[in-house]
Amino acid sequence: MPEILLLTESELRACVRLDRCAIDLIADGFAALETDAVVMPPVLGMELPAVNGEVDVKTAYLPQLDTFTIKISPGFFDNPAKGLPSLNGLMVTFAADTGLLRAILLDNGYLTDLRTAAAGGVAARHLAPRDTRVAGVIGCGVQAELQLRALQLERDLERAYVWARNPESAGRFAERQTHALDLEVCVAPGIETLVAESQVVLTTTPAKSPLVRSEWLHPGLHITAMGADSPEKNELDPHILTAADRVVTDRVSQSMERGELRAALAQGVIDSTFRPDEIGAICSGAVSGRESDAEITVCDLTGTGVQDTVIAEHAIRIALQNQAGKTLST
Amino acid sequence: MPEILLLTESELRACVRLDRCAIDLIADGFAALETDAVVMPPVLGMELPAVNGEVDVKTAYLPQLDTFTIKISPGFFDNPAKGLPSLNGLMVTFAADTGLLRAILLDNGYLTDLRTAAAGGVAARHLAPRDTRVAGVIGCGVQAELQLRALQLERDLERAYVWARNPESAGRFAERQTHALDLEVCVAPGIETLVAESQVVLTTTPAKSPLVRSEWLHPGLHITAMGADSPEKNELDPHILTAADRVVTDRVSQSMERGELRAALAQGVIDSTFRPDEIGAICSGAVSGRESDAEITVCDLTGTGVQDTVIAEHAIRIALQNQAGKTLST
Repeated sequence: MPEILLLTESELRACVRLDRCAIDLIADGFAALETDAVVMPPVLGMELPAVNGEVDVKTAYLPQLDTFTIKISPGFFDNPAKGLPSLNGLMVTFAADTGLLRAILLDNGYLTDLRTAAAGGVAARHLAPRDTRVAGVIGCGVQAELQLRALQLERDLERAYVWARNPESAGRFAERQTHALDLEVCVAPGIETLVAESQVVLTTTPAKSPLVRSEWLHPGLHITAMGADSPEKNELDPHILTAADRVVTDRVSQSMERGELRAALAQGVIDSTFRPDEIGAICSGAVSGRESDAEITVCDLTGTGVQDTVIAEHAIRIALQNQAGKTLST
Repeated sequence: MPEILLLTESELRACVRLDRCAIDLIADGFAALETDAVVMPPVLGMELPAVNGEVDVKTAYLPQLDTFTIKISPGFFDNPAKGLPSLNGLMVTFAADTGLLRAILLDNGYLTDLRTAAAGGVAARHLAPRDTRVAGVIGCGVQAELQLRALQLERDLERAYVWARNPESAGRFAERQTHALDLEVCVAPGIETLVAESQVVLTTTPAKSPLVRSEWLHPGLHITAMGADSPEKNELDPHILTAADRVVTDRVSQSMERGELRAALAQGVIDSTFRPDEIGAICSGAVSGRESDAEITVCDLTGTGVQDTVIAEHAIRIALQNQAGKTLST
């Protein structure tokens, strides 16, 4: 039995971070997802209302990679009151040719954060206006920071606005990120102002009802909505999907069940024949990205197993180069 | 972050084995599955025809337990030609109240084998004729042995017949099990004879077309069909499901998609209104088991996440008592 590589969160943090290489790899993964050779089953989702929890399992098989990964993400939302994190989880990686266990990545959600932000970077690369100088981020959690970083890797930002339900948290975020991102980050007085002032808006919340209204759209705006990833979440007014010039998702079928398309379907704003482009079709060159400065574009990201398989293989490759981690013999 | 218990296959083999305690626990799990409080999502199945492989992920949440487990089972059927096992896999166990990772069970499928056999023991307990003396097993793999052992734990066998596609393998199985099970095990000349001579028939193969014909049924026969667990597999002539006095499954919805009910549905022998009992309803006492010596009964087992969660918690409890395994701090 071959050895199994065991990597902890701190070892993984030392190995991989959000950079253009990570964005490139995720873009390649999305492009591969458009081919028949990639197998990505629907998410296994287990809702646990009795304990205010949920567990998602995602995976995908890319024949061009050496491994495939199964990612397990528990979210238990009463944990913070117990002094524990809501989100954690791990990735389990297998050899693509034999199915044998190769690695266990005890990342506590770090790699999920990273691959999620990298997908935002892919969206920004192809859909944000080329001259984007001002961005607005809604929410002030880990993804608010990482999505802003991903956008910075793709565009030269001069200023960012932040809005969050808790103004004090937004203020702390603005202060912290002004230093961390070397960028002027200000708290917006409201979401309408934030949208009006921004060329790119990043929604990064677990909202269950829309935060951004259709009437606030303006020429040249790009929105990346990455918060909704389960059937109860919804960040965008569904009419945004019909008002925008262009809607793109990471996976149409998944967005119909767990993303912004789900809410729009439920409200009858779109029907099941609604067929936005998938971002992989843009990455592969099959369809174009943003076509004009004035276009209004929206990208709904729900998070795919392809990203998990790609980021895990990337992390393992670097860990092996760095001789990080322990090996287990079973 | 609390510690994580890591258990290897050999440590797990030393801790847990197929016994009446395991059968009792699986029976309790099936009974719980009949209540609303248990959450068991559909199996995540990833078919990988390009590499002759498949991966199944199963889980279930039982509020009465301290943990829940996600079980990952890869099957790569070209592995034997490379000197590697087809089946392997692991179980990942989380705290039921916080979703935090508690244990990683590197069992290479051992616990799956065990909980699958224990389910056969539950079926035997409630459905095999009380005076069962002769059993027939079709197939000669790990489950052929374990299902026979499970039946022996529930009934006083005097003799067993085995039939397998490869007569030499069947002969070796008969010789080996005659010693191992302290039971006269003979190779049957064909499946028809095996069925005719047996009060209980255990089908344990990955057959893709029926092995047991409806016209071979006889009064008092019980069949446990545990081989089919994915949409291409089928061991029983679908007419057996309508000819038998009683059909029981581990989970009706799963058997409709991955078990013997699927093939019968596909051939129009039953329709989607066909509603056999679930074995949990028998375990909980809601419905009766075998009602007469002459009844013909069939139990289709597809393997459920409840069994995985139950067996993992059992294994961890014993491992902790025995101070087995390593603990990881992350």
